[in-house]
Amino acid sequence: MQTLVQHPSSFLDAIISPGELKKLSIGELRSLAHEIRGEIVRNLNKTGGHLASNLGIVEITLALHYVFETPQDQILWDVGHQAYVHKMLTGRRNNFHTLRQFRGLSGFIHPNESEHDAFIAGHSSTSVSLAVGMALARDHLKENHKVIALIGDGGLTGGMALEALNHLGHIQRDVLILLNDNEMSISENLGGFSQYMKRIKETFFYKDIKQKIHLIEDQLDGLALTPEMRKMIESVKQEAKERIDTPGIVFEKLGINYSGPVDGHDVGAVIEALSKVRDDAAPRMVHLITQKGKGYGPAEGDAIKYHGVKAHSLEPKVEPAADKKPKTKTYSDVFTDSLIELAKVEPNLVAITPATAEGSGLVKFGKIYPERFFDVAICEQHAVTMAAGMAKAGLKPVVSIYSTFLQRAMDQVIHDVAIMNLPVLFGIDRGGLVEDGETHQGVFDIAFLRSVPNFTVLAPKDAVELQQMLFAAVRNLSGPVAIRFPRDAALNADKLATSADNFDQFDFRSWEKLHQPSHPSPLVVLAYGAMVQTAMSAREALHTRKLDATIYNARSVKPLDGALLKQLLEQPDNRIIALEEGCMSGGFGAAVMEFRSQMLLDSPGSRLAEVYSLGIPDRFIEHGNRSILLNEVGLSPTLVADFIARCAQAT
Amino acid sequence: MQTLVQHPSSFLDAIISPGELKKLSIGELRSLAHEIRGEIVRNLNKTGGHLASNLGIVEITLALHYVFETPQDQILWDVGHQAYVHKMLTGRRNNFHTLRQFRGLSGFIHPNESEHDAFIAGHSSTSVSLAVGMALARDHLKENHKVIALIGDGGLTGGMALEALNHLGHIQRDVLILLNDNEMSISENLGGFSQYMKRIKETFFYKDIKQKIHLIEDQLDGLALTPEMRKMIESVKQEAKERIDTPGIVFEKLGINYSGPVDGHDVGAVIEALSKVRDDAAPRMVHLITQKGKGYGPAEGDAIKYHGVKAHSLEPKVEPAADKKPKTKTYSDVFTDSLIELAKVEPNLVAITPATAEGSGLVKFGKIYPERFFDVAICEQHAVTMAAGMAKAGLKPVVSIYSTFLQRAMDQVIHDVAIMNLPVLFGIDRGGLVEDGETHQGVFDIAFLRSVPNFTVLAPKDAVELQQMLFAAVRNLSGPVAIRFPRDAALNADKLATSADNFDQFDFRSWEKLHQPSHPSPLVVLAYGAMVQTAMSAREALHTRKLDATIYNARSVKPLDGALLKQLLEQPDNRIIALEEGCMSGGFGAAVMEFRSQMLLDSPGSRLAEVYSLGIPDRFIEHGNRSILLNEVGLSPTLVADFIARCAQAT
Repeated sequence: MQTLVQHPSSFLDAIISPGELKKLSIGELRSLAHEIRGEIVRNLNKTGGHLASNLGIVEITLALHYVFETPQDQILWDVGHQAYVHKMLTGRRNNFHTLRQFRGLSGFIHPNESEHDAFIAGHSSTSVSLAVGMALARDHLKENHKVIALIGDGGLTGGMALEALNHLGHIQRDVLILLNDNEMSISENLGGFSQYMKRIKETFFYKDIKQKIHLIEDQLDGLALTPEMRKMIESVKQEAKERIDTPGIVFEKLGINYSGPVDGHDVGAVIEALSKVRDDAAPRMVHLITQKGKGYGPAEGDAIKYHGVKAHSLEPKVEPAADKKPKTKTYSDVFTDSLIELAKVEPNLVAITPATAEGSGLVKFGKIYPERFFDVAICEQHAVTMAAGMAKAGLKPVVSIYSTFLQRAMDQVIHDVAIMNLPVLFGIDRGGLVEDGETHQGVFDIAFLRSVPNFTVLAPKDAVELQQMLFAAVRNLSGPVAIRFPRDAALNADKLATSADNFDQFDFRSWEKLHQPSHPSPLVVLAYGAMVQTAMSAREALHTRKLDATIYNARSVKPLDGALLKQLLEQPDNRIIALEEGCMSGGFGAAVMEFRSQMLLDSPGSRLAEVYSLGIPDRFIEHGNRSILLNEVGLSPTLVADFIARCAQAT
Repeated sequence: MQTLVQHPSSFLDAIISPGELKKLSIGELRSLAHEIRGEIVRNLNKTGGHLASNLGIVEITLALHYVFETPQDQILWDVGHQAYVHKMLTGRRNNFHTLRQFRGLSGFIHPNESEHDAFIAGHSSTSVSLAVGMALARDHLKENHKVIALIGDGGLTGGMALEALNHLGHIQRDVLILLNDNEMSISENLGGFSQYMKRIKETFFYKDIKQKIHLIEDQLDGLALTPEMRKMIESVKQEAKERIDTPGIVFEKLGINYSGPVDGHDVGAVIEALSKVRDDAAPRMVHLITQKGKGYGPAEGDAIKYHGVKAHSLEPKVEPAADKKPKTKTYSDVFTDSLIELAKVEPNLVAITPATAEGSGLVKFGKIYPERFFDVAICEQHAVTMAAGMAKAGLKPVVSIYSTFLQRAMDQVIHDVAIMNLPVLFGIDRGGLVEDGETHQGVFDIAFLRSVPNFTVLAPKDAVELQQMLFAAVRNLSGPVAIRFPRDAALNADKLATSADNFDQFDFRSWEKLHQPSHPSPLVVLAYGAMVQTAMSAREALHTRKLDATIYNARSVKPLDGALLKQLLEQPDNRIIALEEGCMSGGFGAAVMEFRSQMLLDSPGSRLAEVYSLGIPDRFIEHGNRSILLNEVGLSPTLVADFIARCAQAT
């Protein structure tokens, strides 16, 4: 790292816009790449962020801006977390210290930030679809620019990307796809496509032909062959090798012209490869081989040591969250640890993750129970329906999935799990606000899941309850259950049980009274999940206003605790306040209101308490620290107290 | 057809369970296939149903039951509309007259019906994921049966199926995939995969190698080659041809052993192909070529005439809905006709459909504007994100999608359309209950879409309003708009405008008063979409109870008509009744309750009217005639009147 820090940034300093790039020689671009790596490492040490993927795409980004002209030409980034270099080259270098901070530079790509960002990104596997749409629009409008989709080998496993390739192969429009094939991640990117790229050389298919050609050669050996004939035989061998022995054939068969593989860190080679196909009019793919974390400090150039970068957790070291709370267990950790415990007594429990083994902590489960662990790559849809098949066939599948990615599998949740009322447990990770911003906020899961018949939808107040819910739900699973938890340090993680026994009778469907005011109060707070702690913390601010509220841990949003709710609603002076870290439209608050309306119908003449709701408002929430965001949307303890005070005055 | 009717069903009569099948010779199976076709045609003439796809799969189904043992072996059907033969062979022949009728046989596959149905189906592209899940479960539980996934060439375009193939290729479990490749549909099943199967013979790749081998042969010609050498050269040619010149290579590259193609109507050949790979332990695919509608009546054996079966609309003729209302325009027709009109004045309007061109009527648009029509195959995700790319690049994309299939694209709706607030219009077809049953009910779209920021969510009361909404929305599109309509005959289809001009000022966001009681009444019905007509029809039943209600066409569920709603709620004696053909959890009724709760907060001390909600209850709704189902869930005019009367008594 020291070596990087010492380099001056003479080339980088001169880049105000992509235009300056084009004046540099290949040698100078190499120096620039080196400077950029130094700058990234220095910056991320301060701000945190995605180190490895950005170090891996330095030369590709340089070549893109060298060969193409943004913003006229449109570059579609996939996921978009690897666009830091692009940001530096398009006038955002001076704001880099604000990366991923509230109202600072986004960690992803965003047209609001720069005209050089053609579209947003955040979720995987969208770039080819967007490129197809933009290319069709360009052709319809008789425009004349280029549309370039970047996609990683991981993103390529997403069904949506395959749908788009399939369509593009058919319509044959001018779209350039850059496949950023990260060698380092091959072992992790499960699935036939990646395997195929790796396996290709071993396949019987090429070997068969090669062998037979060898045999022919052997037999021909004694004969007087002309040099021309030898050349011809050689050419057949080459042809077979090149055409068969590359990943390209699958893409070519789908109608995408393939070229590569190209060393994605040889900026000259990448420029040459892009220039060569730049002006083609057909769908085409350039396959670039890169290394995540390329060029990082002392490990540079040492492939073996370099492999270890991930093991040494260099990237997490620059994540500020990890820096600040180095030893705190997250809810994800608690979920995984509890699952490991549970697996001891549940031999048919299996865990499934759609490429979030690291983030969800499930990698640990996979090490202990490799035969019961399924990382299906970026395939949320397949993950859920596969789980349905497993459940039908007698297993107890647990699907760990981020709230925001569950959106990719809503149809599978409904069609394959819920209609059959199958015992699949969903661990909904990152439920609520996360620092990554609009594309990653986990705000729709409560509203969506509670609309689906047969579902039980839970959220724990702390680590202990998460464990209890998981144990009890899985042990008694008779239909689909979702347990939602935030991306945060887990409360009471030091009080976890060390065995999964004796939880069968834990009744997670009833709500729990956590606080009873010393004096009678009409204020009743029903808090869901992470909001339980917020409600408890709001008591102080309430006390300063001479207010107090009964606080319930409303841990089950579906079913509601009808008996308790009925009792609370039947006291007409009560003000019932539903508190959730999810979209208010159709969320937990709405569920309580629906219940109240039904009660009015069922008991004519009764006067019922009024219901108020506080949650995520009807807008997309930006990026930034979780506490800042919660404050921003009105869900900090202080603002929750303000809201409760407003409710005290209402009606 | 007469020839079929005259055949006795001596073989079919003897089949009580699949066991009897296995005693028949290949010749007898052929006769049985013939009998089955006759029975299907006779039955569907009475009940309606999927004719062509079931005639196309007769021999495959026979072979499956000949080679495998259900229910031990598990057959996963994709979509499941082609399982009539399977139903006949598994004890359901005598109930066939109840097909697709309320409480009769389902038109799809369903474990509730028979132990021979391993899972439900309805939506496309799920079978491989289910098979992977079941195979993993089987292996974990050390069971020993076979798992077979059927999938069509159409289903294969769904990203989810590709995710599953990709995963299966990696994990290498014992799963047999039967690819039912319907030659007839190749021209319709757009996309690289289908094209690829067709194009394969023309590819430069094989031709190149073949040419060069020919050249070698020519040059070798004068030399004294041993027969062995000739044989060897021949073998290389064969190898190249077989391995390269078949659709198989793409699957083999993904790790799926491929065999075929096999004539899917030669029952002996199919049995042989299945038997050959039956006991393999690796993932394998048998590629079967079939013809939709195979063996139908006089056209049998005449491939050219046979092609015309679709054009002659034989299948729709046996659909009872089409029989009963032969000339009535559906909402789908109105949508398409209006879109065609609109396209005249909106040069940048394009229409997108994910393989529902026929059902949505858009095929007509495609004929008039082929350059502005995009059928992307069964790719809901790609369809939506491609539309987002188009909108960003300056087009006005209209996505026609069934409510139930929109579930497949919820993430794309949120992530790619709504976050960017892009002007994409969604025509949500089949919103509400449909006769196909649980898997196809369009009940979640209102609740889901109204939770998504930036969306406008509309539903017209009749054909005229559908047209007005479409015209006005597209002409002034500034963000995503959804317009939802049912699968039904369109009201007032005779009153449509013939030009898309002069609709710019139509304010579809305000609600419309349709009925004012002659005497003051506290009852106020807010009806959404198709429920407007139901509410109007309920007036008569209300009158017999001496009741009347003000009736509004609440055509926009997002945004709500706040000004009107405020006014209605401020009269505390009012009973506000929200009526929708969507799930009540989080739906339109919940939206009105949320609004009311916010009003209570904003105007402390006010007393507001109460809100009641009627919609689809929290369970999955079976199949059957739409009117029967609406009655079943309480949404017939009479039952709506009952509900309104209950509300009159409440509070």
